[in-house]
Amino acid sequence: MNVEIFDSTLRDGAQAEGISFLVGDKIKIAKALDELGVDFIEAGNPGSNKKDLEFFKQVSKIKFNHSKLVAFGSTRRCNILAEADCNLKALLEAETEYVCIFGKSWDFHVETIIGTTKEENLNMISDSISFLKAKGKKVFYDAEHFFDGYKNNKEYALETLKAAEAAGAEALVLCDTNGGTFPDEMAEIIEEIKKVIKAPLGIHAHNDSGMAVACSVLAVMAGCKHVQGTFLGYGERCGNANLAAIIANLELKKNIKCLPDGNLVKLTPIAKEIAEISNFKLEANLPYVGSSAFAHKAGMHIDGVYKSSKSFEHVSPDLVGNERKFLISEVAGKSTVLAKINKVYPDVKKDDPRISLIIETIKNLEFGGYQFDGADASFELIVHKAFGNFKPFFEVKNFKTIGEGPSHSDEFSASAIINVIVEDTEEVTGANGNGPVDALNRALRKAIGKFYPILNKVSLADYKVRILDGKEAATAAKTRVIIESTDGKRSWSTVGVSKDIIEASFKALIDSIEYILYKENK
Amino acid sequence: MNVEIFDSTLRDGAQAEGISFLVGDKIKIAKALDELGVDFIEAGNPGSNKKDLEFFKQVSKIKFNHSKLVAFGSTRRCNILAEADCNLKALLEAETEYVCIFGKSWDFHVETIIGTTKEENLNMISDSISFLKAKGKKVFYDAEHFFDGYKNNKEYALETLKAAEAAGAEALVLCDTNGGTFPDEMAEIIEEIKKVIKAPLGIHAHNDSGMAVACSVLAVMAGCKHVQGTFLGYGERCGNANLAAIIANLELKKNIKCLPDGNLVKLTPIAKEIAEISNFKLEANLPYVGSSAFAHKAGMHIDGVYKSSKSFEHVSPDLVGNERKFLISEVAGKSTVLAKINKVYPDVKKDDPRISLIIETIKNLEFGGYQFDGADASFELIVHKAFGNFKPFFEVKNFKTIGEGPSHSDEFSASAIINVIVEDTEEVTGANGNGPVDALNRALRKAIGKFYPILNKVSLADYKVRILDGKEAATAAKTRVIIESTDGKRSWSTVGVSKDIIEASFKALIDSIEYILYKENK
Repeated sequence: MNVEIFDSTLRDGAQAEGISFLVGDKIKIAKALDELGVDFIEAGNPGSNKKDLEFFKQVSKIKFNHSKLVAFGSTRRCNILAEADCNLKALLEAETEYVCIFGKSWDFHVETIIGTTKEENLNMISDSISFLKAKGKKVFYDAEHFFDGYKNNKEYALETLKAAEAAGAEALVLCDTNGGTFPDEMAEIIEEIKKVIKAPLGIHAHNDSGMAVACSVLAVMAGCKHVQGTFLGYGERCGNANLAAIIANLELKKNIKCLPDGNLVKLTPIAKEIAEISNFKLEANLPYVGSSAFAHKAGMHIDGVYKSSKSFEHVSPDLVGNERKFLISEVAGKSTVLAKINKVYPDVKKDDPRISLIIETIKNLEFGGYQFDGADASFELIVHKAFGNFKPFFEVKNFKTIGEGPSHSDEFSASAIINVIVEDTEEVTGANGNGPVDALNRALRKAIGKFYPILNKVSLADYKVRILDGKEAATAAKTRVIIESTDGKRSWSTVGVSKDIIEASFKALIDSIEYILYKENK
Repeated sequence: MNVEIFDSTLRDGAQAEGISFLVGDKIKIAKALDELGVDFIEAGNPGSNKKDLEFFKQVSKIKFNHSKLVAFGSTRRCNILAEADCNLKALLEAETEYVCIFGKSWDFHVETIIGTTKEENLNMISDSISFLKAKGKKVFYDAEHFFDGYKNNKEYALETLKAAEAAGAEALVLCDTNGGTFPDEMAEIIEEIKKVIKAPLGIHAHNDSGMAVACSVLAVMAGCKHVQGTFLGYGERCGNANLAAIIANLELKKNIKCLPDGNLVKLTPIAKEIAEISNFKLEANLPYVGSSAFAHKAGMHIDGVYKSSKSFEHVSPDLVGNERKFLISEVAGKSTVLAKINKVYPDVKKDDPRISLIIETIKNLEFGGYQFDGADASFELIVHKAFGNFKPFFEVKNFKTIGEGPSHSDEFSASAIINVIVEDTEEVTGANGNGPVDALNRALRKAIGKFYPILNKVSLADYKVRILDGKEAATAAKTRVIIESTDGKRSWSTVGVSKDIIEASFKALIDSIEYILYKENK
């Protein structure tokens, strides 16, 4: 048995407080979800904002291996023709094979919130689906507030489903929009619906009662074939159903396939990647994918896990690409590090003494606040250095920066002076920039650019800053900077840590430049 | 109908990665839980560590209004007398009316992990309970790994419960120690157990499958009268069942009493207090008590909530002491802005011309890269300014920063000079800091701190940086900084945008200070 996984991180997830995806972020997340192998990626609402329409335009050039993109919208407005509805028109402009539209199931919403008649609402549902079908689209129908509607007016809620079924929707997705329905109640209602509806049913749960995962799992057990959620549970209010937990629960405990064969081990790496792009910390206690999900602290638990992992673990962490962690002994995952080394040096074996050296270096850096998830190029440099294959291209002796404010739009607000040794001569260069990090970047390129012309093609694509220690005043705490660089063809990420945000940025920048010079000159 | 609420934040919660309670923290949390009115507070394991014994000594002097303290331990070790077991002795020393001990239910654990016979394990359970009862204690029995045990050897798992029942335990608490059991399965098993066990049953769930709240709620519906969890779900791995969500679900949806009458409104304030004492940020998306739990972002949702709150809220936020929040974003409309204005100026109507002025200001700022979702305090300042109620407390004329690198751990790496006009005089101050942002922060506080002593209590809790425009080189692109500040009681967020990261940070900092000064001086 299998179910369809429908991810709405880019649409319903974007409603979360604190999320504001750039078009580039959305493309990266869509690629990550495709790599994981979800069936559908609901990627935006082209009728409600221009940024989403722009996204669909850009994304149409990308080939996905597994996932299908879905544009989201609503049924037509009341008392107009579907042809005249600009939201439906925008859905067509997104040029996706699949669309998903929501309609009203709860008579209270029909009459009080959108102010029309129950009859007209049924027409809105069937007209909109028919219109989209006639234009060649495959249509999912989201029955908004379905469970609340059913509890208040069962007959009418069923009529809305029947209208969508008759108009030819691919699946009727029962939405618990307000997140207040309990999983047992949900399962009972689904059993009832199956008696009158033959179209495939889907579930879309929210976490306002803290039970969205359970609701989704029990809905599947009751017969739903299509599960909507967001990959890490991001979403409005308390979030949507967390697909990572649902997928692992169904695959590992109920033998229901959600992903292409062999892809479940990507669950944790993809979770890290999506959290990073969203600029959220991956919550440590997230089921299956959090860094604490398999962390043991109690001595008795650690003893037990040593004797047999099932004694205190419901599943084995490697099934979902995660790792066990013993909090008191801080055992480093040697096999994880080896796996990463093997990506660069495939022939290195587990007993190679250089691995311990690398683990030691990584541990010390992590202790100082570094993080190599999301900074692969910095990790790779450490490996090349440990293997004696890296010869420095330049050496920064020191730098000084001067800044002032308020800034004026047409003038640089900062200057930097840098002392660099390159090809055995000392270069002292200065440059102006927008802020001290930019000025430093320009000064460094001035100093070494003539020796390494490839750098003219390199630019920074993203820059993220995080404060590490909440106990001190945050501007004085340690700062971790992760930057992503590109030369137009490739992109790579590096990390820097310092108490000084300028220095942290500069360290990440130096790694970025060293990485590309190594790649070009090896 | 009612259930007993048994909070283990101070015992099982303390197993969470990142938690390390001081004795004083534990006393504060116990007082907060008593104020909320939970029935039992499991406060530590006196046999396993001295800090917990010291806590029980100190806490015995405090009078609690509602809650009873519980000391936690295990059944006696194998092949000794209960009288000779130091863990059981330590339980007596805690001098609590109630104790809770765990024993093994799963034959695999009995034989493979602790290495004894099934028979001896039954003796360990009954001896230990009888011993404690004879010493005048009331005893809860935690049946560790009960569900795993039941699934593997049903008869033996039931025998362990019968041994505890016969020895006179107050309640038999069924523990899903590894967190892998599904809620429907749990409910079915409980129905079976009720046929053979007459003692009151309890439930203790973990969140490894993301379903601990649902498991607990369904266990209560199946007949459990006693619910163990931790108030905010803190605990080993993915945490324990979140009692705040369970209490609200049972009281509001199932009419099952968990707290003394009238106390449910304390849920959110107590959640904030416990998170603060634990030195964790209260997760914004926590059901019922999180700051985003009733936050609306989509324009259509906000319009709906205006017409009737039940349209997009499963319960009213004031029932749990929380509040509704309207987020500002590109998907929000006029009514969102009005709703936020109404929180500060309740009498302002939709046609007030100042609203258009505010929307105009917001739109221009958003176009320039600002984001007010997640920066409420900056939004509120704009409103006060538009309403003519904000009189500047100080004016920053200009600033200069100097930085250098590489930095040394014991020296400041930057300095700042700032010109500020405050109370009609110009102050010029300088300060050193870890990087230019920190130096500027210190210089500004030096200049205005003597006029506004409240600033001594204000510190920064979080600092996030994002680059806005991927097309330019990122270090020269626009930078958006969002900071969160706290005075120990409240926290508030502000935003700043500039091409220069230093200036963006400084703008957010100035908003933060202006906000708290306005609040204190209005």
